[in-house]
Amino acid sequence: MSSADASKKLEEIGKGMVQQINKGDGPTFETTLRTKSNTIFDESAGCLTTGSKKETRKFLSMAQARTFMQTVAIASKCKQFLKENLHTSIRGLFYQLKFTLGEDVDEDLFTEQSESNGLIEDIEVGLRIKREDLNLTTDRKGFVAGEMTILDKFGGDETIIDLAKQGRSGWSIPSDVDNGMEIKTIKAKYVLVVEKDALWQRLNEDKFWKKENCLLITPKGQSTRGTRRLLRKLADRGLPIYCLMDCDAWGWYIYWTIKTGSMNLAYLGHDFAVPEAKFLGVTMSDIKEFSFLDKLTIKAKDVDVKRAEEMLGYPWINRYPDWVRELKEVLKSRKKIEQDALQGQRLTFVGEYINQKIKNKEWLS
Amino acid sequence: MSSADASKKLEEIGKGMVQQINKGDGPTFETTLRTKSNTIFDESAGCLTTGSKKETRKFLSMAQARTFMQTVAIASKCKQFLKENLHTSIRGLFYQLKFTLGEDVDEDLFTEQSESNGLIEDIEVGLRIKREDLNLTTDRKGFVAGEMTILDKFGGDETIIDLAKQGRSGWSIPSDVDNGMEIKTIKAKYVLVVEKDALWQRLNEDKFWKKENCLLITPKGQSTRGTRRLLRKLADRGLPIYCLMDCDAWGWYIYWTIKTGSMNLAYLGHDFAVPEAKFLGVTMSDIKEFSFLDKLTIKAKDVDVKRAEEMLGYPWINRYPDWVRELKEVLKSRKKIEQDALQGQRLTFVGEYINQKIKNKEWLS
Repeated sequence: MSSADASKKLEEIGKGMVQQINKGDGPTFETTLRTKSNTIFDESAGCLTTGSKKETRKFLSMAQARTFMQTVAIASKCKQFLKENLHTSIRGLFYQLKFTLGEDVDEDLFTEQSESNGLIEDIEVGLRIKREDLNLTTDRKGFVAGEMTILDKFGGDETIIDLAKQGRSGWSIPSDVDNGMEIKTIKAKYVLVVEKDALWQRLNEDKFWKKENCLLITPKGQSTRGTRRLLRKLADRGLPIYCLMDCDAWGWYIYWTIKTGSMNLAYLGHDFAVPEAKFLGVTMSDIKEFSFLDKLTIKAKDVDVKRAEEMLGYPWINRYPDWVRELKEVLKSRKKIEQDALQGQRLTFVGEYINQKIKNKEWLS
Repeated sequence: MSSADASKKLEEIGKGMVQQINKGDGPTFETTLRTKSNTIFDESAGCLTTGSKKETRKFLSMAQARTFMQTVAIASKCKQFLKENLHTSIRGLFYQLKFTLGEDVDEDLFTEQSESNGLIEDIEVGLRIKREDLNLTTDRKGFVAGEMTILDKFGGDETIIDLAKQGRSGWSIPSDVDNGMEIKTIKAKYVLVVEKDALWQRLNEDKFWKKENCLLITPKGQSTRGTRRLLRKLADRGLPIYCLMDCDAWGWYIYWTIKTGSMNLAYLGHDFAVPEAKFLGVTMSDIKEFSFLDKLTIKAKDVDVKRAEEMLGYPWINRYPDWVRELKEVLKSRKKIEQDALQGQRLTFVGEYINQKIKNKEWLS
């Protein structure tokens, strides 16, 4: 979305409210409910999204007046950032709001940032817009190496960045991979996502991405919004997305957030989900297939067991029979395995493991 | 340290032990105590370091036999990594140990990684060597932008990386900035370290590093070993190091870790400390100097107050009279300020603030 389009969307809220006032009505702002009960699994898209339940915020309501004013203030600030062509974090936004409103109003309109966070989500949902399009930066994390070039238009400069020439560091996935940024060329044939940066570094040292002509990505734990958007864009170009995570609660969560989105950001829907993603490992059946792993398993913790039970209770889990089998196996064996264990016998084994898995299509889909 | 030198150091431990055995003695390994009582402030260097108390680990001791074996096993594995010319994380090392020893020994030599972590520190201290020199990678974090080029010899490739051409992402500071990596050219005149990545992004968007000809660095919170080593190397080249942190417990801690090292990694000494570092802000006196900040302060939390009290109790704090004044002011006002607050009035104000501080030498040293 261009900055002009985003500004227009923000203006439209304002204009709508002015019309309401001119008609003698109190201004309102409509948003989609982000509650658990309005979070659904979109069967056709294969990802989490919000349902159709709406909520209308009213200015002329004792209970909602404050929230309403806050929402309008945030929208107004974002419009200013777009006009200035400057970005800031939601913490920066919080301080701008705290300062500006303090001039005319005795009481602080915002006392805690937690108040503004939810309202930004309201604006995202209500306007069908991403916060990145409103010049708000988000936490960044995650790295890429591989045969891809990026055009980055930023701060008045245009830079071509070659992701095959970033040495040990790799290219850091920024907060926003859409605005002012485009993929120029891409020679890699698939994407490999490894949960941990340590394993990414191991594979980067082996030049795995060069040998196998893939893009080597680590979200460095849970994926940021930027990483999820980048993976979506790569999947849109037809690249298979293979994931290598720990076989435990956290690893599964990281994978499913990439694949279907997470419960609390479900409202972002398909733009931030990659239902095409496949789970290469580590899996319970690896223990049988690669005998050295047997002694490298760890006793599953309560959190792992609880998570496996919870996932088996998801209404949509039966769409994924491989996963039902896997999770039941975890509950039976009460074991977990980390991706790091793949280095136990030989440091370079990880690459062989990945190649075998992809070649034999041994993945959970 | 070259990989051959590191291997030699490891060999020397082994040879020493063989000599002890040949003489009919039980093998021993000497290391420096890393306890609090053996952590001292080196007045001449201006950083934390370990004192002279030594500890001797004995193989022929019921209490120490296990630890002794573990230490030797780690040294042996690291020697193998150096020979293979491959790197791994301490988690990777843990699994290699778990696997190898499991073949011959019934009992696991290591059950938890926490056991191996301390022993790696023993080896670092005992051999006066960094774990990075033993092909062990550490967590990485932190970014740089500015007029500097790096030669990165890695995985068989040699890459020149221009830190002025990294767009919005910047260059990610790797785990190891010493081995196979060198600074080729550097035009920047000083180093600016900002605590938070969000502020780094703000300043990067303003091209602050280009306008002011500095290196813009964020440790992204607490500094990693890699970031500390990089800052040490830049200080060794005579570049002033200015830091902009939050005025709170965490901000001070991040700054003092850069400046003097931290208590628990004090054994790393001067190689990982930058006593030359200056603290530009945010400070309590900023509230008076920049009036808009007054309404953007936050009530200090217990942790901030406790930290200020603790720091005032450091035996060496009187070397830093500016800091004594600052911390007393915190205790009096019970307020804190975040660096993000500098954006409250105008997003681009941060740069002006930094320039004024440097120009007028308004810093805490």
